[in-house]
Amino acid sequence: MQTRERHVDVIVGTDRIDGTLVVPGTEMPGVLFVHGWGATQQQYLARAREVAALGCVCLTLDLSGHARTSSQRESVSRERNLRDVLGGYEILAAHPQVDREAIAVVGSSYGGYLAAILTEMRAVRWLGLRVPALYRDAGWELPKLQLHREQDLVAYRRSFVPAAGNRALRACERFRGDVLIVESERDDIVPPPVIASYRAACAHARSLTYRCIGGADHALSSDASQREYTALLVQWFSEMLAGARRDVREAAQTIVADAEGVRSIDESAAS
Amino acid sequence: MQTRERHVDVIVGTDRIDGTLVVPGTEMPGVLFVHGWGATQQQYLARAREVAALGCVCLTLDLSGHARTSSQRESVSRERNLRDVLGGYEILAAHPQVDREAIAVVGSSYGGYLAAILTEMRAVRWLGLRVPALYRDAGWELPKLQLHREQDLVAYRRSFVPAAGNRALRACERFRGDVLIVESERDDIVPPPVIASYRAACAHARSLTYRCIGGADHALSSDASQREYTALLVQWFSEMLAGARRDVREAAQTIVADAEGVRSIDESAAS
Repeated sequence: MQTRERHVDVIVGTDRIDGTLVVPGTEMPGVLFVHGWGATQQQYLARAREVAALGCVCLTLDLSGHARTSSQRESVSRERNLRDVLGGYEILAAHPQVDREAIAVVGSSYGGYLAAILTEMRAVRWLGLRVPALYRDAGWELPKLQLHREQDLVAYRRSFVPAAGNRALRACERFRGDVLIVESERDDIVPPPVIASYRAACAHARSLTYRCIGGADHALSSDASQREYTALLVQWFSEMLAGARRDVREAAQTIVADAEGVRSIDESAAS
Repeated sequence: MQTRERHVDVIVGTDRIDGTLVVPGTEMPGVLFVHGWGATQQQYLARAREVAALGCVCLTLDLSGHARTSSQRESVSRERNLRDVLGGYEILAAHPQVDREAIAVVGSSYGGYLAAILTEMRAVRWLGLRVPALYRDAGWELPKLQLHREQDLVAYRRSFVPAAGNRALRACERFRGDVLIVESERDDIVPPPVIASYRAACAHARSLTYRCIGGADHALSSDASQREYTALLVQWFSEMLAGARRDVREAAQTIVADAEGVRSIDESAAS
């Protein structure tokens, strides 16, 4: 089995000594799940378990304005929720089992919109977007709910939006990793032009997997559509991870433990 | 594959949101290696790699007064080095891959003495002692090197010491985990009465593995004795870990990911 090691500072009072942590195995991909507006981390928890079982470290989170902080729902802005997502990313990236070069972000609806924007700020290798929502760039710091009152988002989402004109789409256009886009066939919140805008923006992605769940509404109200989304996600991750592991195997160099090499530095003083 | 999960606080500026980290697989044992006086963490690094390859998280460290802090050699006390060991233990115990109920400590000579004392302060399941040294309890805060000048340690080590009369031996007497004791046949620093005192003190250990490396001196100066110690250590850990994994399998309960169960809490609000 391969091992990997890193220096650690052992803090002793106000001093520190040097240590080396040696851990078996290779690092794993990290996957961040971002729920949609009005949901909680429960939306992705069962799916996170399935993806973790493929050999990934997964993180779900409750966006500000939801779950325990639902009292902030009226005031929370996109900027605030984006910082939530960045905070989640940092936890994953700092996790000792996570390969920082292999981080995925998956989001539904508003969470997909935030996930797309994250790719312009942090290293992301895989981007999964289920019915990603779209908002005008203006009013970035305004409460998210105020946007629905002050901007005609319904009209905005009825036309194709060129990537240059929208922050999330610009991020997609710059993205060079692998993309999954999942549409719901009967989605009256995120209609086909939004999906078309995202698909077109992802022109430079390393790979694109687009699927439409037949008969599904925006919220995946039926059990069948829920199962289909989970299956799509697991299938996509299986394919992506198989590719990533092939890359790792080809680049791998085994650290050879050389027990004989330690003699000259073994203890030599009286104890 | 099993997964396990834990709550995490995602820090966002001065606020925090709730997150859940889902990680594949079961936790692993943690192993702390404590070098002897006058050595450095290099003494155990190659061995740590071999033990990590068995599926453990391993930590080596440079005790205060050694390596980068060798300028403190004249002043460093047992108390200070014990705090080093405690600091290393905390890093292992806090490591997200480590099962806090399955921590081993292994030490040579002075490091074995410190390892034995650690067991009275922290939860330790496996204790590995190679030629563990013995010191009088008096002068605990004195510089370690001063002990050799002011106490007749050579004489102290020539007689059997009852467990009640020595802090390290009292810790061994209270220890209920598994013990490995490795003697060097031609050791003029830690002579046979010291090993006999440790063996007798470990009367209540769950298991005791005592081995003597034929022809070896205290420092394991020959390649052959170095290899034999490494082989003994790896063999002992293999046996201990096999037992521990058998225990885990018998107690394991698989978390069943129930994708259908998420429907009612999936997103239901407009995005």
